[in-house]
Amino acid sequence: MKTNDLAAVLENLRKKNPLILSLTNNVVQSITANMLLAVGAAPVMLNDAAECGQLLSVCANGLLVNVGTLSHPQAQLMRSAVDAAHAAGVPWVLDPVAVGLLRFRTEFCHELLAMRPTLIRGNASEIMALAGEAAGGRGTDTTEESSAAVQSARKLAQQCGCTVLVTGPVDYVTDGERVLALGNGDPLMTRVTGVGCAMGALAAACVASAPDAFTGAAACAAILGIAGERAAARCPRPGSFAGALLDELDALSPAEVAEFTRIV
Amino acid sequence: MKTNDLAAVLENLRKKNPLILSLTNNVVQSITANMLLAVGAAPVMLNDAAECGQLLSVCANGLLVNVGTLSHPQAQLMRSAVDAAHAAGVPWVLDPVAVGLLRFRTEFCHELLAMRPTLIRGNASEIMALAGEAAGGRGTDTTEESSAAVQSARKLAQQCGCTVLVTGPVDYVTDGERVLALGNGDPLMTRVTGVGCAMGALAAACVASAPDAFTGAAACAAILGIAGERAAARCPRPGSFAGALLDELDALSPAEVAEFTRIV
Amino acid sequence: MKTNDLAAVLENLRKKNPLILSLTNNVVQSITANMLLAVGAAPVMLNDAAECGQLLSVCANGLLVNVGTLSHPQAQLMRSAVDAAHAAGVPWVLDPVAVGLLRFRTEFCHELLAMRPTLIRGNASEIMALAGEAAGGRGTDTTEESSAAVQSARKLAQQCGCTVLVTGPVDYVTDGERVLALGNGDPLMTRVTGVGCAMGALAAACVASAPDAFTGAAACAAILGIAGERAAARCPRPGSFAGALLDELDALSPAEVAEFTRIV
Repeated sequence: MKTNDLAAVLENLRKKNPLILSLTNNVVQSITANMLLAVGAAPVMLNDAAECGQLLSVCANGLLVNVGTLSHPQAQLMRSAVDAAHAAGVPWVLDPVAVGLLRFRTEFCHELLAMRPTLIRGNASEIMALAGEAAGGRGTDTTEESSAAVQSARKLAQQCGCTVLVTGPVDYVTDGERVLALGNGDPLMTRVTGVGCAMGALAAACVASAPDAFTGAAACAAILGIAGERAAARCPRPGSFAGALLDELDALSPAEVAEFTRIV
Repeated sequence: MKTNDLAAVLENLRKKNPLILSLTNNVVQSITANMLLAVGAAPVMLNDAAECGQLLSVCANGLLVNVGTLSHPQAQLMRSAVDAAHAAGVPWVLDPVAVGLLRFRTEFCHELLAMRPTLIRGNASEIMALAGEAAGGRGTDTTEESSAAVQSARKLAQQCGCTVLVTGPVDYVTDGERVLALGNGDPLMTRVTGVGCAMGALAAACVASAPDAFTGAAACAAILGIAGERAAARCPRPGSFAGALLDELDALSPAEVAEFTRIV
Repeated sequence: MKTNDLAAVLENLRKKNPLILSLTNNVVQSITANMLLAVGAAPVMLNDAAECGQLLSVCANGLLVNVGTLSHPQAQLMRSAVDAAHAAGVPWVLDPVAVGLLRFRTEFCHELLAMRPTLIRGNASEIMALAGEAAGGRGTDTTEESSAAVQSARKLAQQCGCTVLVTGPVDYVTDGERVLALGNGDPLMTRVTGVGCAMGALAAACVASAPDAFTGAAACAAILGIAGERAAARCPRPGSFAGALLDELDALSPAEVAEFTRIV
């Protein structure tokens, strides 16, 4: 993987302006939409199964399924949206928030695993829990280092035939064989609600703009990580950092992705 | 229409502090409330039909119905709220997000049309779809120039006995006879989620503070457009622009509305 | 009460990083989570009763129940969460938004009162309505001075065996016997949606970090009030104030709480 390949994803994303349907939790809908808009993608959120199916068959380029505030009606909506995404050949991303900790979502995430996500994005605790190797963290907090989850992520990717993105101080991308480690980012990204969740939507936009999910996931980690570093350098407190992060996503050029991505 | 008439709407809004009930989509509730607070109105959101009915009969001054994340239970809530608004003589604004593209909301918006909105706010694609003349855009994106929708807007206003506000690089207001074109605004307003949706709530606040819906809708376009220009001049990136837009709405004076409104 | 006792609450909160489950209205979920993160607590929102019960029994340190956009399903979720909080010994805060004005929530808040909240946070109108002495305000606006509610608050605290925090230009804390008045804060805090609602979650975090609810509620009023003053001094308009408020919560030290709390 060369950093030029990741730069090309951003360039293609800005040309394509992919439409991403996010079925996500209540808390992060605004930052999810704003992050997609800032990077150059188009957001849409829906609450009705028929509308999701129609959008996916007609014009959506990617789907995010985030179980952060899962309810039984929303689980039903997600099942039918995933079916529609498969029917339309639209890539979909699973964000298994707090899997392993809470029973309902844990069972539902295992059901979704069987529906073959294109990409899974989670922190180390979530990926280890999903692979059956840990009890899960505390909500969106991880209790594990991301490096500890690399073997779990490889196993999960092999079992599901998908790509896995483990996010943390170092982000890891694996398709079950290759493993890429990226070192961009800043701890402030965990001090603003929804940055991680919105990263799932950004990942869907990148996958929709990349030759394959592995490259798309790596581009997502690089783009958000570089923007986060730059925002934190200007705004070291979480309130102003949140706005600066969107500004930096908007300002980031493909050439800068090529130059500043840190493969570690 | 003189720009002084639009300035008078802002002045009256600040005196009256109208209470606006917004039944709107999940994504934009926070920016909708913050935009109303910044301009000098009072926001309220509710999820229960009985509470909506009671609020409309007792103290609400305007109602927004935005179908962006429509569900069947929410449609039922909206029907009963519109009935309550009519019973109480409260003006109501319809924002037919993505009408024409998705079937459920398209049918529901036509049902709402028959319930005689005071004002309809949409982009060119939405207004043309609602008038039966185009297939609709892609979510909140318009695929048409707003000028293309002027004839559709006039026809729609005549058929429904309402006022129509078509928003875009130029905003058009029509009551079926008169057409007013306003040229304020900035493209950054489309790069922050919910600015367009919150404009529907701002329109309800302006209509509640104006001698008629035509003047209220024109004032809304002028107020938001001038604030948007000023915010963009200071903050040319979307994250900081979002905060600056609220600051400028708060700072804007009626005299500045009179001076800087561009009728084109 | 010495201001050093309030400073100790902030110090303890930062060590403990309490996990606060907020069952709150649609509009304020993002600012609620961001305010908890900024001060040093951990936010979680859920929509499923079984998940709420499990979280409360396993790892939550506090619960907020805010009725701002109450629905019948959410009321059911709140009842079962309060039961689970009691079973687990987790303190819970009631924010009775607009009680007295709207019938459904008024009846529900009285039902919740019987379930013995640890702390009630409301404005003067809400506290007077809850104590049976006024008709309530207009949504989140209060129509009463907070001093007018002090006797209602004492009576309510005695009847329910709880602590009451009346917020306004002066904040009052009472456990039915003691009354403490705190004078920090800025009017801009009422111009950003959700600052008051998020204060309920902050109160839960402070109570979870304090020797008793009285001290926790007082610390909450001091912490948010001082941060609000500092943010307003730098950012006198509501859009930039919102970000600055989070920055100041992040920056505030226990020593500054001890120095700048104004007991009046």
